[in-house]
Amino acid sequence: MSSKPIIAVLGPKGTFSELAAIKFFQNKDSELIYLDTIDDVFEYVSNTKNEVYGVVPIENSIEGGVNLTIDCFIDYDVKIFGEIILDINLFMLSKGSIEKIKKIYSHPHALAQCRKFLRKFPNLKIIPCESTAKACEIVANDHSSGAIASKEAAEIYKLKILYENIQDYKSQTRFTVICKKEKEENFKNNKTSLIFYLEDKPGALYSVLKEFAERSINLKKIESRPSKRILGEYFFFVEVEGNLKQENLKIPIENIKNKVKFLKILGSY
Amino acid sequence: MSSKPIIAVLGPKGTFSELAAIKFFQNKDSELIYLDTIDDVFEYVSNTKNEVYGVVPIENSIEGGVNLTIDCFIDYDVKIFGEIILDINLFMLSKGSIEKIKKIYSHPHALAQCRKFLRKFPNLKIIPCESTAKACEIVANDHSSGAIASKEAAEIYKLKILYENIQDYKSQTRFTVICKKEKEENFKNNKTSLIFYLEDKPGALYSVLKEFAERSINLKKIESRPSKRILGEYFFFVEVEGNLKQENLKIPIENIKNKVKFLKILGSY
Repeated sequence: MSSKPIIAVLGPKGTFSELAAIKFFQNKDSELIYLDTIDDVFEYVSNTKNEVYGVVPIENSIEGGVNLTIDCFIDYDVKIFGEIILDINLFMLSKGSIEKIKKIYSHPHALAQCRKFLRKFPNLKIIPCESTAKACEIVANDHSSGAIASKEAAEIYKLKILYENIQDYKSQTRFTVICKKEKEENFKNNKTSLIFYLEDKPGALYSVLKEFAERSINLKKIESRPSKRILGEYFFFVEVEGNLKQENLKIPIENIKNKVKFLKILGSY
Repeated sequence: MSSKPIIAVLGPKGTFSELAAIKFFQNKDSELIYLDTIDDVFEYVSNTKNEVYGVVPIENSIEGGVNLTIDCFIDYDVKIFGEIILDINLFMLSKGSIEKIKKIYSHPHALAQCRKFLRKFPNLKIIPCESTAKACEIVANDHSSGAIASKEAAEIYKLKILYENIQDYKSQTRFTVICKKEKEENFKNNKTSLIFYLEDKPGALYSVLKEFAERSINLKKIESRPSKRILGEYFFFVEVEGNLKQENLKIPIENIKNKVKFLKILGSY
């Protein structure tokens, strides 16, 4: 009947975003496409008319919110379709042996998650790059360099595993699945995300949170992002429990519209 | 009488942290020392007995909160002494000419602030490094590389200015001055910072903000940081208007102690 859904992820092959996409869409017959940046994934999803999804990291349990993803939710016209959490297990990979490695490549978040481990190798030059998979691509032909990436990336890029599970803490990343159209309303969707922008006056944020607290709606996440105009002006990215079809959530969201300067509802999922 | 105060900043010579320190301590006779990381500045200030200050970036108007600084406030025992805001004007610097440059070095935040500008040079390889001044140090002997840094760094490292004010948006960074002992209470200090940790239950954050809102105390900033244990658990870093000596602020802070699992008061400044 319909053509295969397309899923856009951060590339190249072997990123954690790709692993998250495969886990989320499990048995579905779909086509993965690999883009260079988080911005590109949002742009692709917001500009393509066919059935297209994007999978982007939104939060890591160690490093916190992924600023670029939250900023893209402000800039692009997309909705949230779902989410999936991955355990992040990091591996030191190389063509060569540990004695020969002089440089180590990875995404800044992955490097930050192995900070303590990497202190054991003070002579290794640490080089940030666009993604963990990109790091593998770089070191695939260089016996004097290593990458920090997933176990799956070791297979794809034919690298040896030098050290297993080198992250300093147990860590998880939450990925958001984005799409162009709002997800069909379903009472099972139990999380709703919004972005709003407030005036700088006493009680402005409190007055918004009050709408949820008075109805015992749990706030799952609140993150502030700068307005990019002047210091001290923020957007708030908020996740609450509940579904936009429920009266319990409909009413507070209606009330909030009168309390904020800008409101974007990203959907229930 | 007393020995010179020491001010620890992110090095090497020519970082924006150094510029902020010079602007804050103006005519004071003090000694600057240059450390490698934000962590090192916090460690130095918390472990040294003499009169020592540290100057660290806490927030940029484009990139948002500096996660590492906020995490260090959780981990180290220091107080806030003051703050200072700098306009961030970025320059492309090199020993060579623009035609000869193949690589461009800078701090990830500075690179992010020139994203649009850098798209004009699709062949330039972008290489993140520890600081804008470190970038200048790297390119000082290499005619095929450029750095993005301050105007002052051009002088220090004897580099030519290739492009002026290349940041995509007007941008400012706020720096926090830290010290070991609480600042002597002064009614002129009109800002107070705290960090707290909440239980995950409906209305937990609302109940804390209520204490301020009911007394018309303006919330200047709220930032969440992951607990580094499980996804969805956060510390909150909050700045409010007012002084810890004022009854108006003393009472809500006393009340908050009973509402949070952890509270750290960073002082009024």
